[in-house]
Amino acid sequence: MVGVGKQARSASRLIARADTGTKNRALTAMAQAIERTATTLLEANARDVEAAKRKNLDLALIDRLTLTTRTIEEMADGLMQIARLPDPIGEILGLKYRPSGIQVGQMRVPLGVVGIIYESRPNVTADAAGLCLKAGNAAILRGGSEAIQSNQAIAACVHEGLKAVGLPESVVQVIETTDRAAVGELITMQDYVDVIVPRGGKGLIERLMRESRIPMIKHLHGVCHVYIDDRADFDKAIRVADNAKTQRLGTCNTMETLLVARGIAEKILPPLCRIYLEKGIELRGDEAARKIVPQMRPASEDDWFTEYLDAILSVRVVEGIEQAIEHITTYGSQHTDAIVTEDLTRARRFLAEVDSSSVMVNASTRFADGYEYGLGAEIGISTDKLHARGPVGLEGLTSLKYIVFGDGHIRT
Amino acid sequence: MVGVGKQARSASRLIARADTGTKNRALTAMAQAIERTATTLLEANARDVEAAKRKNLDLALIDRLTLTTRTIEEMADGLMQIARLPDPIGEILGLKYRPSGIQVGQMRVPLGVVGIIYESRPNVTADAAGLCLKAGNAAILRGGSEAIQSNQAIAACVHEGLKAVGLPESVVQVIETTDRAAVGELITMQDYVDVIVPRGGKGLIERLMRESRIPMIKHLHGVCHVYIDDRADFDKAIRVADNAKTQRLGTCNTMETLLVARGIAEKILPPLCRIYLEKGIELRGDEAARKIVPQMRPASEDDWFTEYLDAILSVRVVEGIEQAIEHITTYGSQHTDAIVTEDLTRARRFLAEVDSSSVMVNASTRFADGYEYGLGAEIGISTDKLHARGPVGLEGLTSLKYIVFGDGHIRT
Repeated sequence: MVGVGKQARSASRLIARADTGTKNRALTAMAQAIERTATTLLEANARDVEAAKRKNLDLALIDRLTLTTRTIEEMADGLMQIARLPDPIGEILGLKYRPSGIQVGQMRVPLGVVGIIYESRPNVTADAAGLCLKAGNAAILRGGSEAIQSNQAIAACVHEGLKAVGLPESVVQVIETTDRAAVGELITMQDYVDVIVPRGGKGLIERLMRESRIPMIKHLHGVCHVYIDDRADFDKAIRVADNAKTQRLGTCNTMETLLVARGIAEKILPPLCRIYLEKGIELRGDEAARKIVPQMRPASEDDWFTEYLDAILSVRVVEGIEQAIEHITTYGSQHTDAIVTEDLTRARRFLAEVDSSSVMVNASTRFADGYEYGLGAEIGISTDKLHARGPVGLEGLTSLKYIVFGDGHIRT
Repeated sequence: MVGVGKQARSASRLIARADTGTKNRALTAMAQAIERTATTLLEANARDVEAAKRKNLDLALIDRLTLTTRTIEEMADGLMQIARLPDPIGEILGLKYRPSGIQVGQMRVPLGVVGIIYESRPNVTADAAGLCLKAGNAAILRGGSEAIQSNQAIAACVHEGLKAVGLPESVVQVIETTDRAAVGELITMQDYVDVIVPRGGKGLIERLMRESRIPMIKHLHGVCHVYIDDRADFDKAIRVADNAKTQRLGTCNTMETLLVARGIAEKILPPLCRIYLEKGIELRGDEAARKIVPQMRPASEDDWFTEYLDAILSVRVVEGIEQAIEHITTYGSQHTDAIVTEDLTRARRFLAEVDSSSVMVNASTRFADGYEYGLGAEIGISTDKLHARGPVGLEGLTSLKYIVFGDGHIRT
């Protein structure tokens, strides 16, 4: 792996200075290669899927692993979209004169080498390669062993795109070994890798958090809340709380716990829970909630901490915004939390005091997403506070250095 | 230490929501307490200095340790300056409507708990406490054992300031033990500390880099370069290269290696080196440089890597900008590097390709400083690429979270 790291470091110098046109032509050539070799990709993927079935792997995993004509088209489209995004590299910000006479600003630059560690979804190979490339970074991609045939077929397309503009294959290296030790080496090569972006289940992230010596852009889980204030607009509350839970069950920005102010609980919980129950959502409530909606099972302390990623919702009646914020601080995961209220002071307080990567007023938690936020694309979501926070797009794969212009200026 | 961490975490919630006026009043009260108790501070410091002398500690260390009436005034002034800086917390950036109808922006928020680990200079206690407080963070300060009396006397002033506005002392905790193991615990309490800022010598930083499990804002060393291009203005080159080395010898932004293009070396090295030699700078050159200035000792491979922090300068003659950038990439420390040239294309190339936290054109490397850049104050300098890079002021002690406003908007 050290050889891979050294090659990546040296490739990162080349890609850092590649101009916008070159990067966009490489992305276009990658997209074309993916479209042209769709049949080959499907065949390689079929071999992975067959092997996964033979090994009796989880059905959800096999679902994520499977490529279709449609997902292959989406991969190519994704690369074309990245080509159309403005180039973040070289942007100069805030150039200002100082009293000393020097002019100081910041220039956006690549991070260097990005390591991506992911599971099952082969489309991450194309997405991550494209985003890293556009942001001027070299990438080391380490996909799941179950997707190795698919990932290598996609890697061939990525390399074809690089070759088309005269860039070396080492700009995007796809690790070919399925040896788990390779991950351990990748996340400790501080000299060759600047940041690790893990994409995968809790088990993977937890392992990397324990073992990585390299900073990560990551989130562990999304225990997202909607708090319905007693000054909420009834219809908005129903709409937001319904959508936040039921639009998609398995995403990290799906609501897992509903908090309802005591003053509105008796009025709003019955119709809202009827919607949930009709949509097959199992409800787990605290005592006060269960008094209002007896169909709820009792929620345990563990439930408040749990990201179900499933048709289950915890419901708690709180005294008001104070207790809602306290609950979110205690049990939340700093991912995405929303308040529904018409009260300006409470909305401002919720925004200021809820310490999550996305905080919303009168909007569904499902909006926490790079595309919805206008980032153009997303490499992942971060719930950490250093560097990027929330959905991470191209800018999260860059850094800012200071630049100074003088005219022979010296410090006195 | 876990108790300290828990208290800091809980205090961080209080200080995060303290309003600007409260924070500024606390800073003012701290400054007043420092001025009022100057005699006590000098006495405490005298005990530290005496003990250091008894232990035969390094003279430079004793110099850094020693407080004077003047440095105590500067400490108080520094806190008043921080009080006058705009409050970074709560600033809302880039609020924009998206096609879905939601309005998305970012809000500046505190990092949470900042751990500062420093050596000898007691003024860091006041500076770091002030900066962390203004940025809404709780702080855990761990100073050098040699400064413990001074640090505790300053801590008493800090706590008096907190008390004056009704904030608990746990907002700024100054570790009282001189046990080295306390540092080891502090840098592994991931649950309670969000970022570590080390201030000190290479030995300290290297130890923390090996052992810390918490992200750090740090730089290891500053091997700064000035490259004099053959299209440099002669007078600007002399001025910048002189100032970068001789204005102060022991700072991290002092030039350690001078690179001179072959085309100008014979003309500029003799007068420039005369200045250096007159100022008592020892010169170590490569063969080409020594042919021009025979007073130079030969430079070894190690010299190119060395941060002297002393009256020594390495000098190398390079073919041109290509080799200069190559040298900086190979031997530099990504701190601060400058080019002197009148050539626009070469200036743009140097700015784009030199991968350092500050890159300068026709200005002295000595400008790489939070005050000179207009940050108002500086907690440290970072040569890393994640989060803050270059001089780090109040903003580097903050993070950005996403905020979303809707009107009952849902994702479809």
